[in-house]
Amino acid sequence: MTQFANAVCAAEGFTAAGIHVGVKTSNKTKKDIAMIASDVPCSVAAMFTTNVVKAAPVKYNMGVLPYGKVQGIIVNSGNANACTGQQGMDDAAAMAKMTGDLLGVSEKMVMVCSTGVIGQRMPMKRIAKGIAEVHGALSREGGHDAAEAILTTDVFFKEYAVTVALGTTAVTIGGMAKGSGMICPNMATMLSFITSDAVIDSSVLQDALNEAVVGTFNQISVDGDMSTNDTVICLANGMAGNTPIQKGSADYDDFVTGLTKVCHYLAKKVARDGEGATHLVEAEVRGGKSLEDARKIAKSIVSSNLTKAAIFGKDANWGRILCAAGYSGVDFDPEKADISLVSENGTILVAKNGGGLEFNESTAADILKAENITILVELQEGSFTGYAWGCDLTYDYVKINADYRT
Amino acid sequence: MTQFANAVCAAEGFTAAGIHVGVKTSNKTKKDIAMIASDVPCSVAAMFTTNVVKAAPVKYNMGVLPYGKVQGIIVNSGNANACTGQQGMDDAAAMAKMTGDLLGVSEKMVMVCSTGVIGQRMPMKRIAKGIAEVHGALSREGGHDAAEAILTTDVFFKEYAVTVALGTTAVTIGGMAKGSGMICPNMATMLSFITSDAVIDSSVLQDALNEAVVGTFNQISVDGDMSTNDTVICLANGMAGNTPIQKGSADYDDFVTGLTKVCHYLAKKVARDGEGATHLVEAEVRGGKSLEDARKIAKSIVSSNLTKAAIFGKDANWGRILCAAGYSGVDFDPEKADISLVSENGTILVAKNGGGLEFNESTAADILKAENITILVELQEGSFTGYAWGCDLTYDYVKINADYRT
Repeated sequence: MTQFANAVCAAEGFTAAGIHVGVKTSNKTKKDIAMIASDVPCSVAAMFTTNVVKAAPVKYNMGVLPYGKVQGIIVNSGNANACTGQQGMDDAAAMAKMTGDLLGVSEKMVMVCSTGVIGQRMPMKRIAKGIAEVHGALSREGGHDAAEAILTTDVFFKEYAVTVALGTTAVTIGGMAKGSGMICPNMATMLSFITSDAVIDSSVLQDALNEAVVGTFNQISVDGDMSTNDTVICLANGMAGNTPIQKGSADYDDFVTGLTKVCHYLAKKVARDGEGATHLVEAEVRGGKSLEDARKIAKSIVSSNLTKAAIFGKDANWGRILCAAGYSGVDFDPEKADISLVSENGTILVAKNGGGLEFNESTAADILKAENITILVELQEGSFTGYAWGCDLTYDYVKINADYRT
Repeated sequence: MTQFANAVCAAEGFTAAGIHVGVKTSNKTKKDIAMIASDVPCSVAAMFTTNVVKAAPVKYNMGVLPYGKVQGIIVNSGNANACTGQQGMDDAAAMAKMTGDLLGVSEKMVMVCSTGVIGQRMPMKRIAKGIAEVHGALSREGGHDAAEAILTTDVFFKEYAVTVALGTTAVTIGGMAKGSGMICPNMATMLSFITSDAVIDSSVLQDALNEAVVGTFNQISVDGDMSTNDTVICLANGMAGNTPIQKGSADYDDFVTGLTKVCHYLAKKVARDGEGATHLVEAEVRGGKSLEDARKIAKSIVSSNLTKAAIFGKDANWGRILCAAGYSGVDFDPEKADISLVSENGTILVAKNGGGLEFNESTAADILKAENITILVELQEGSFTGYAWGCDLTYDYVKINADYRT
């Protein structure tokens, strides 16, 4: 089973809602507050930004994560509640308390996420009104509205769910995400919420999430700016009734595979939906000495402003690609590297053994016209393949970010 | 004494020239080949890109550097001679040989630099013609033409010379640079050529250059892309007749101060002249626990795409500044950090103790209208101050780089 809309409610026992309450007074219609709730307490795993500057809700969540049980998540867009000092911490805790009271659980069983402008106080009166209203709107069909409410400058919805068979039991894993700007997760990413009905302990769930994120959310870059709010939260409420998933079992592997599929889909959506982007750019680096090397090189390529601008210009500038690989920090022999450009419009080998080939520029430009482009690098150093995802650098990225706050 | 035009010939015994020969056939007029020569052999120091992918001339220069004496430098723009394999190595060596023959010295006493498009073979017939012609044009007044010939998408000339008194002897240090794109030196930078008439051994000169570059060229960023060709070369021909400069002496300190002044001026010019830039952005980070910490944070701030786009938009988005400081890799307490914006139009404190202040947006916008902007961060963690320089991210950066090659 694969599901898109309402994916965060695909697993048994989860409800969600998203409504407009006016966190940013300048926007009169956009949904800006979302809630996700489970009928029963959930195991929880989470990953947060490694930025020294952490938003108040991130610090709040890091504090409650060790309790190991969460039943609800409250999320707002429009204000990041970052760089807001003790007031911000109090506001995040108040949001958790209000949500917990409505759900009939301790505030320690609630996680809080905020995204939007940095450095402005939360409009707590409107937030309080919003929490009450969004709680009243919770339903099994509310996932799509929730997915909308967490977006900021995003263009696309990001929702995806899969079902995996653990023995004879079907377990569902579904998630939603928001991205767009300040996307260069080093460990977590933008905001992503994943729910599952699997029976799995929090510590095992955390291991599974770590495994799923390292090759997905951690391999995307829109602008190299790591946010103060990056968060991935995964809840599992156990309502599928499977045999508890143990680390190292076949069930664990199957669960990780499913979770990775969800993260992979959402991460690519975030990359494609980078601010101002017109292309999804995938770097596939083959023949690396290690998986880490291959991933590092791939990430360096999709992060290069010069490569990103060339893709926007449909310019097969492979020199910039090799150059970006070269400053990735990985030691490799550039004179063994081959580079191809791949899309639904064809494949073209543009460099072999580190040197340029004569190639048809119009064929290359045609390949680069496609929305989804893969930059394929063959290192011929080993047997590992790494992927990363990014987008092109466009006039609109500059436009969006030159005047976001005001 | 401070000198701008013809700075690379300010020191005794240096000649230079720059002419058009047509390295890029598409450009019929731009000067594109330059030569610098000394009347006598020079001590030499150099720093090169740390990119794994090194252009052929970089590899050539790394090979001749240990010989410790250089008398001439040949430079072309329009073609980087990078990712050109053995052919590129042969071409770089041939350029050195031709230049050496004309100067009457071994090819091991010639350094070669190229800048421009990556991955295309050098047009050696035109280059050979150009080397003969530019050699014929060498003069004591040719430094300004040389400074023009090394430029690519640069808008401004970058030339600067100073004189320092070592005891009773005046020693001159002058340099020129080209920058613009692919500017994020980790160790060297774009192309920069510095000449001096000081008496100084190559090994002492190398130490002096290292000291001068770490806080200047290594602290600039235009786009985070480290080039395959980044090079700084410093020649000293001894014609000033000063007492040889010894490491650890007062003369050494004075020489380093002068050399740093030249590097500082040129590095800032390179940052200001970033592709498409409309502002020079200086980050001044005070109160760091160490010089390295303060410099790292400063570099992270000027490298942030989001901060750069905000400056272009004249938006006092201090949250992005603090966020960029936060992912610099330096551990500090964001709740002690103050942020001010400074320009010739005034100073405004926009954040205190990691949190936003109420400030007059139009005053802030007015400050950000100035060409030169300083982002001042006070960490209150220690007593070290670090600087870095960059530019804003503009539509024109994207435009220039979306279609540079074709």
